[in-house]
Amino acid sequence: LKLELSARSNAVKLETLKELLIEEMRDLYSAESQILKALPKMVKAASEPELRNAFAEHLEQTKKHVERLETVFEGLGKKPKRKTCRAMEGIIEEGEEMMKQDAEPSVRDAALIAAAQRVEHYEIAGYGTVIAYAKLLQDGAVELLQQTLNEEKETDQKLTELAERLVNLEAAAL
Amino acid sequence: LKLELSARSNAVKLETLKELLIEEMRDLYSAESQILKALPKMVKAASEPELRNAFAEHLEQTKKHVERLETVFEGLGKKPKRKTCRAMEGIIEEGEEMMKQDAEPSVRDAALIAAAQRVEHYEIAGYGTVIAYAKLLQDGAVELLQQTLNEEKETDQKLTELAERLVNLEAAAL
Repeated sequence: LKLELSARSNAVKLETLKELLIEEMRDLYSAESQILKALPKMVKAASEPELRNAFAEHLEQTKKHVERLETVFEGLGKKPKRKTCRAMEGIIEEGEEMMKQDAEPSVRDAALIAAAQRVEHYEIAGYGTVIAYAKLLQDGAVELLQQTLNEEKETDQKLTELAERLVNLEAAAL
Repeated sequence: LKLELSARSNAVKLETLKELLIEEMRDLYSAESQILKALPKMVKAASEPELRNAFAEHLEQTKKHVERLETVFEGLGKKPKRKTCRAMEGIIEEGEEMMKQDAEPSVRDAALIAAAQRVEHYEIAGYGTVIAYAKLLQDGAVELLQQTLNEEKETDQKLTELAERLVNLEAAAL
């Protein structure tokens, strides 16, 4: 009981949608920071040059996504702060396990795409959520967050296209 | 080094797309099983009756999703086996933290929707992946998996609609 009470007293009380927006922003800020660290490893692990390029390009986009979140925090009058995103930890952990596994290069590439699309979909859900809140709060952040959401969706589609046109075909031919 | 070697020897070598399909199926089987346990708690935690209904309905769908995965495993000549999906553990853990947190009912409902949409998007990515593999392998599983994917997408859209029409508006009015 004591433990529970102390845990509770540490927790923020969520009284408004704005407070929830900030909580969700902190989750995304943690998620993007983790992706920033994971992508260089994915670039190295990929065999197919187009896939390496896609990951490298998304790394550059992710740097901008982090900056955009920082700008939105500022606009909300809050210091950028991370709240460890355990979901992203899990997605990346599974991706790294896959990278270490003994696999045919094209099968590994297919697995890397599968992991990366889980990352993208996590972000699509997350940004969709904060955009919905920001719209209601008439917060100026909407446009910036929407740019990021569009880029996450484009990356997801590009990975689907690459898998269907190249990587999965190679893996299926083994 | 010794530890790494022993870890390696435990890992499956991924030599074909079919082996990767089975790995991904095991991840989804774990994810669906976790969702099956989490949804009754989400039903209880939700205040808005329409949201409770949406979660209760998705619980019934999830039972079918689990059965469909078992059918697909059978068709692939494999026993249904779970490979702990750490990503889903993370998503659900964060959702449960949110349920315990001191919050206004409509803000908690909004947070529950945010967590549930992360769940849906994880599955949209995962089922999209296994469907792409099953298509190439000309596996009969495609149709069953596609039914599930459609239901995950419909659930995601229903939650967006419910958030925009009701829950987020209530939370924004606080």
